Amino acid sequence: MPDEILNDISHRRYNPLRGSWLLVSPHRTKRPWQGQQEAPSKSSLPEYDPKCYLCPGNKRAQGDSNPSYTNTFVFVNDYSAVKEEQAPYSPGSNNSGAEEEDDLGATLLQAQSVTGKCYVLTFSPQHNVTLADMTSDDILPVVETWTRIYASHISSPSSSSSSPPYLASQAATCLASLPPLEPGVSLPSPPKQQLRYMQIFENKGSAMGCSNPHPHCQVWATSTLPEEPSMELRNMTSYRRAKKRHLLADYAELEIERKERVVWQNETILIVCPWWAVWPYEVLVLPKRHVRTLVDFTGDERKQLAEAIQEVGRRYDNLFECHFPYSSGIHQAPLDASEEEAENSYLHMHFYPPLLRSATVRKFLVGYEMMAEPQRDITPEQAAARLRDCGAELYRKDL
Amino acid sequence: MPDEILNDISHRRYNPLRGSWLLVSPHRTKRPWQGQQEAPSKSSLPEYDPKCYLCPGNKRAQGDSNPSYTNTFVFVNDYSAVKEEQAPYSPGSNNSGAEEEDDLGATLLQAQSVTGKCYVLTFSPQHNVTLADMTSDDILPVVETWTRIYASHISSPSSSSSSPPYLASQAATCLASLPPLEPGVSLPSPPKQQLRYMQIFENKGSAMGCSNPHPHCQVWATSTLPEEPSMELRNMTSYRRAKKRHLLADYAELEIERKERVVWQNETILIVCPWWAVWPYEVLVLPKRHVRTLVDFTGDERKQLAEAIQEVGRRYDNLFECHFPYSSGIHQAPLDASEEEAENSYLHMHFYPPLLRSATVRKFLVGYEMMAEPQRDITPEQAAARLRDCGAELYRKDL
Ligand SMILES: O=P(O)(O)O[C@H]1O[C@H](CO)[C@@H](O)[C@H](O)[C@H]1O
Ligand SMILES: O=P(O)(O)O[C@H]1O[C@H](CO)[C@@H](O)[C@H](O)[C@H]1O
Repeated sequence: MPDEILNDISHRRYNPLRGSWLLVSPHRTKRPWQGQQEAPSKSSLPEYDPKCYLCPGNKRAQGDSNPSYTNTFVFVNDYSAVKEEQAPYSPGSNNSGAEEEDDLGATLLQAQSVTGKCYVLTFSPQHNVTLADMTSDDILPVVETWTRIYASHISSPSSSSSSPPYLASQAATCLASLPPLEPGVSLPSPPKQQLRYMQIFENKGSAMGCSNPHPHCQVWATSTLPEEPSMELRNMTSYRRAKKRHLLADYAELEIERKERVVWQNETILIVCPWWAVWPYEVLVLPKRHVRTLVDFTGDERKQLAEAIQEVGRRYDNLFECHFPYSSGIHQAPLDASEEEAENSYLHMHFYPPLLRSATVRKFLVGYEMMAEPQRDITPEQAAARLRDCGAELYRKDL
Repeated sequence: MPDEILNDISHRRYNPLRGSWLLVSPHRTKRPWQGQQEAPSKSSLPEYDPKCYLCPGNKRAQGDSNPSYTNTFVFVNDYSAVKEEQAPYSPGSNNSGAEEEDDLGATLLQAQSVTGKCYVLTFSPQHNVTLADMTSDDILPVVETWTRIYASHISSPSSSSSSPPYLASQAATCLASLPPLEPGVSLPSPPKQQLRYMQIFENKGSAMGCSNPHPHCQVWATSTLPEEPSMELRNMTSYRRAKKRHLLADYAELEIERKERVVWQNETILIVCPWWAVWPYEVLVLPKRHVRTLVDFTGDERKQLAEAIQEVGRRYDNLFECHFPYSSGIHQAPLDASEEEAENSYLHMHFYPPLLRSATVRKFLVGYEMMAEPQRDITPEQAAARLRDCGAELYRKDL
């Protein structure tokens, strides 16, 4: 169970978190592959690269120098997609011409200004490691830095604003409990205005559009709530209203019971190949209890999250014995969440990796997937079984 | 207009066809690119490749032989994602165990069986051409074959079923008006059961997961209405109910008036970089009058559509002087559309090409785009201006 038959027949599965369907065609893996091969990832990088804009002590594009950091380091992206200040835009002004046309323009040519701040966050001073090479002790400072940057983007209750965001006091408590930053390293100053959402994401590997192998992720904080987290929050909210329970709490419980899609778990965290996975080896990292945002985790839970992230990275690399590419991201409550939004949010982390059959053969989500709906070849149960078997030591001994 | 300011500031634009937003960051193109380079597409392919499973007269994977066709040829995909017959699946059977768990399973682990038929459709007997190399006279048989296969998937009014699909008589009239197939070439027999939707799509270039350069597209007809056309139909329906007009008719009219996103047009067809384009050089091909499906086009309109497709292909290739990769697809009314569904449908064709700056530098829709929302760098107005300038002859003289 799931009924064995789903291993053989084409079917759709429903993703209750997004409210959308995908097509599963398990027999398609018999198809021979004559298309593009991925380049095997570069091996033997130096521990320090004088040309890398992320290595400690190096100069960056706009002339700033990195400190000699020893675990993580955060700076404002030199090519930010959104900025704190920009010329104002009033939507109405896009409509000129005849009155009827005006009306059409207002409906069919809608735009809104987006401000915000984009950061780059390094995982390690070492140029040639990845999360898979790092121990969970090495990863803990990464989780702490994610937590710190999220917390620091929520105005504190002492701020001038009359009613501080709902999560502000929890953020302040959490900030106070984090270990201090190392000397010489500081977070960039938070934006002057309260932003709406913070997306933490990692693009790993050149196949995922990553242009620098130095281990890092990005953080884009915006004045708007983006589509994906907005859609998820909508679905989590309806579920909670209808059932008085959390969609993802119920889901975690069900998967622990069913076992077949579970990859790994510790006391705090569950790793599953979700029922509705689109990418061949997609996983969902779920806290077992209701956690609204990173600021809700205790120190011990952060350690266990670091351990879970290490498990994902190592199992991925072991699967095809390569540097496994992926994009990952954390979904959590909006920065300025109302009480209802915060309480309906359930933090989780997605990993979307493109490889399908080997280090060089990927799944392309192209024609049918773009025009009609996502389609996958192997089942999530098959993927979970393989990832369960990929535990133990990292396949490579040396970097 | 759009207000000049949108060339400089980060903003979101709304896609009324999908009902979703995307992020536009025009200044991001200043970012230097040090990541993955696309392999330049193979040049100098032979006109006939004895190993190609699409060339005339060759043997295919499952042993069938292709006829000696001279324009187009359609066959059932040897590795179909969906099939006409498969073991039955009843959703209820997935729920076993305790009653409470049953309930969770029914909500959180939903699946449904999908049947259908997948075809491959070649554009030309010549192995080494693309739509860009073909004249609109060469492309006309492609449009006719798309029309024929769509029409042949609607049971005729004379079928045994008591009430034939709403579009059946128009499909029969259209079929009768098409020129006959060439001798020795026939369409595969249509499925025994009326299917719900037909997705015609092309993956062009190895960057788009295409594994055979012989010019071809695919046709997947399914018992279910996939997510994308379903979402579009929903939005077109609400718009028409509210305004008593067609969303895409209004949009075409507005763009013809505004001009800045128009790439090209003839009497029948408009090519625009839509206001809400996600891919750098994405275009939308729109009929100027209300056309529900391919079977509504007259013979002359089919010629003009062939001409428009030739324009897209040639301008794309001229832009960076390369074989421009893309996925394209036609959205139209469901095969078994009710009267309301058919009348609310407005046929259109999407082209999603990944290249951003040159033949080797593409846009990756990865981390932020997957986790938060689509993000683009150049504006659609800038893209349209460049594509307008890419007309005239195809840059390459020889194949
Ligand atoms: O069927 P093809 O062309 O071999 O395969 C290609 O198109 C399919 C439909 O978009 C995708 O599912 C595959 O990932 C892609 O490689
Ligand atoms: O900012 P980077 O890492 O240079 O760029 C990468 O990630 C961005 C955010 O997902 C994408 O928009 C880019 O297409 C991709 O190349």
